[in-house]
Amino acid sequence: MTADVSVGAPTGAREPGERDVRGAALAARAASRLLAGTTADVRNAALLAIARRLTVDPADILAANERDLAAARDAGLAASVLDRLTLTRELLDSLAGTVRFLAAQPDPVGAGVDGTVMPNGLEVRRIRVPLGVVGMIYEGRPNVTVDAAALCLKSANSALLRGSSTARHTNAALVSAMRQALADTGVPVDAVQLVPGTTHAAVHELMSLRGLVDVLVPRGGAELIRTTVRESAVPVIETGVGNCHVYVDAHADLDKALAIVVDAKTQRTSVCNAAESLLVHQAVAADFLPRVLPALIERGVVVHGDARVRACDRAVVAAGGEDWGREYLGLEISAAVVGSLDAAVEHIRRYGTGHTEAIVTDSQSAARRFVAALDTAVVAVNASTRFADGGELGLGTELGVSTQKLHARGPMGLTALTTTKYVLVGDGHTRGGTAAPLP
Amino acid sequence: MTADVSVGAPTGAREPGERDVRGAALAARAASRLLAGTTADVRNAALLAIARRLTVDPADILAANERDLAAARDAGLAASVLDRLTLTRELLDSLAGTVRFLAAQPDPVGAGVDGTVMPNGLEVRRIRVPLGVVGMIYEGRPNVTVDAAALCLKSANSALLRGSSTARHTNAALVSAMRQALADTGVPVDAVQLVPGTTHAAVHELMSLRGLVDVLVPRGGAELIRTTVRESAVPVIETGVGNCHVYVDAHADLDKALAIVVDAKTQRTSVCNAAESLLVHQAVAADFLPRVLPALIERGVVVHGDARVRACDRAVVAAGGEDWGREYLGLEISAAVVGSLDAAVEHIRRYGTGHTEAIVTDSQSAARRFVAALDTAVVAVNASTRFADGGELGLGTELGVSTQKLHARGPMGLTALTTTKYVLVGDGHTRGGTAAPLP
Repeated sequence: MTADVSVGAPTGAREPGERDVRGAALAARAASRLLAGTTADVRNAALLAIARRLTVDPADILAANERDLAAARDAGLAASVLDRLTLTRELLDSLAGTVRFLAAQPDPVGAGVDGTVMPNGLEVRRIRVPLGVVGMIYEGRPNVTVDAAALCLKSANSALLRGSSTARHTNAALVSAMRQALADTGVPVDAVQLVPGTTHAAVHELMSLRGLVDVLVPRGGAELIRTTVRESAVPVIETGVGNCHVYVDAHADLDKALAIVVDAKTQRTSVCNAAESLLVHQAVAADFLPRVLPALIERGVVVHGDARVRACDRAVVAAGGEDWGREYLGLEISAAVVGSLDAAVEHIRRYGTGHTEAIVTDSQSAARRFVAALDTAVVAVNASTRFADGGELGLGTELGVSTQKLHARGPMGLTALTTTKYVLVGDGHTRGGTAAPLP
Repeated sequence: MTADVSVGAPTGAREPGERDVRGAALAARAASRLLAGTTADVRNAALLAIARRLTVDPADILAANERDLAAARDAGLAASVLDRLTLTRELLDSLAGTVRFLAAQPDPVGAGVDGTVMPNGLEVRRIRVPLGVVGMIYEGRPNVTVDAAALCLKSANSALLRGSSTARHTNAALVSAMRQALADTGVPVDAVQLVPGTTHAAVHELMSLRGLVDVLVPRGGAELIRTTVRESAVPVIETGVGNCHVYVDAHADLDKALAIVVDAKTQRTSVCNAAESLLVHQAVAADFLPRVLPALIERGVVVHGDARVRACDRAVVAAGGEDWGREYLGLEISAAVVGSLDAAVEHIRRYGTGHTEAIVTDSQSAARRFVAALDTAVVAVNASTRFADGGELGLGTELGVSTQKLHARGPMGLTALTTTKYVLVGDGHTRGGTAAPLP
């Protein structure tokens, strides 16, 4: 454990119950040490027990969810919020499927990263080990509660979960079911905990626990992520702000381009890997814009275009300067005609958020240049930006999509929840040097 | 590039020249984009040109070093500081050797991390890419200037170097020589720069450049590292505070234990991987302490012992409570007798800094338990803690020894200077779902 470093997280007035956050973190730390000593067999048995608890008799969970839904209706929350909050038997089955998928994956703990024997005979190997205690702060659907806990359990980390207060009864029921599954299989129950307390002060307390909590992952809107990065003394992995572009190159297959643009924009709009901006090479603009603009517009998309895009379709509205940097998260897209691949790269460098950028082209050299030029978590060639997703890339699920460069980048699966340890094995090896012959 | 986030780094009064720090970072960013497009051949040629410039005619460098040494003597600085500051032809040859070693290494950029083809035919691969702009803040010897620049250049990163003001003429001469070598080989010279300005405000400006500087690595004393972690808005990799233990187990070969303890404590004392604490199992204390204590004491080591250690040798001084957590960085060591391996683990968990811990034992099960129980960057079995070093582990040199868990842990070589990029290649792939048939 490294020394505590107090960073100036604003503490404000302390409220009763805050002590409990530290207590929960201490319990999570103790559980993480026990977890690190468990075999994969034990952790997989716990995961399968969780999957059973979610599906065999989910009455308590569904009742808790009904309570949250009733409160949300009473509070007049939007239909989209109610939709995201709703759990069904089918959704629980799907969650259990993800948990079973993780149980069937190879153990990420103990896996060898690299190794060698040095010329002096010292054996050197680097192995994957758990991070320890992982904190999640999230606004989204209650499925994150199960996904995050299962990813942490598989990788032998303790999870400290802080979900949306709108989902508090649902999250409490889900965590209770998971803790019962842990107890049933002999795994320390404090490996999965909700952060106690509902106040903002509790979140600040969590963010102050450097040395006790190993990493915080905020998952939600840009403001949540910005606040966490700014205020947390615990190391943070930034996730998910995505101003994703689709660039349709001079050498694009326009049928594929049309399908990709429509999919990237409309297949699901509230997610970070949805496209928010369309760039079209001038050589194909006259052919492509009259096809793509009506396709978007008839699906309800508002297109904010530059002058050349507006000239193609009267339904296109004028893009303001701020449109190029906007993450609409809805049925809106910005669109511009660019003079070259280099101009597209320059535009994306200026406005992109380092999440996911796509090119549609049949030119091998154009694809190669685009992939090399953009410093981004994910780059897609002839594929929708919507594939920047842990499930779509074979990770089972994801903790979030990291848009930072350190530690993890792109969709974060089990490996992102590990760190490494150098193990050196000698046979009395010393550096020698100044050490005189020993008595 | 991710959105700038202004974290509350105290700025204080701005001084003239601070603008230059941002200017240097912008130039470094531009150079890093060009560097990312260079081939390994080009970067290796630049490294070899640097090695030549350091050795063929180092008169300017040695003259600059003489200037720094004269100023340091005039200021009455300690002999140890003068020693660390001194460059010789032999040291420059050794530095050039490290640079040539790096030139001969495989290119870390573009290396495949993993990859697969998904069931739908989408090709997924993850490749290593440069971080971008790397800032170093260091107090140590001027060799860090060359080591850091060479590691960054090999991995296609720009280096922004902020060394000790004591070494400012030396560092300026080294950087000038390296930039000439870059110019000679067609590599953008702004890939290697000193941070302009000598004020503390310049360092604060550097720490504020989130989005422009990708990572800051402080290398030096605990206070420098603490300050950087606390104040930097740029992501920081913590390095180097090491309260390293050697635990001599009940089943230790005491000859090997003696050699390892003496080496770990005395082979070099001012470094983070030197041992600062000795733990001896009670079963071997009566045999081992009468051998190790005189061996340490006759080499000038002050031993701060608990009651059982003091009982063995009158030259042992009493350990105060604060001794167990101290990083002496000198000829001092704390020493205690422990009742069991578990007690040693508990002691190390309480006082260790997560850097390097060593066990001396012939018991396979004891070694296995010790390695598994300690959450530390490096764990050594029957080897000196002094091997926790990039050079000793085959990395050529190191940027520092990370004691944090995220991104890099332990000695940091070329891989630590990379991040990854997902490259997805499809053939018109979409997520489908709600997208209706296209017109």
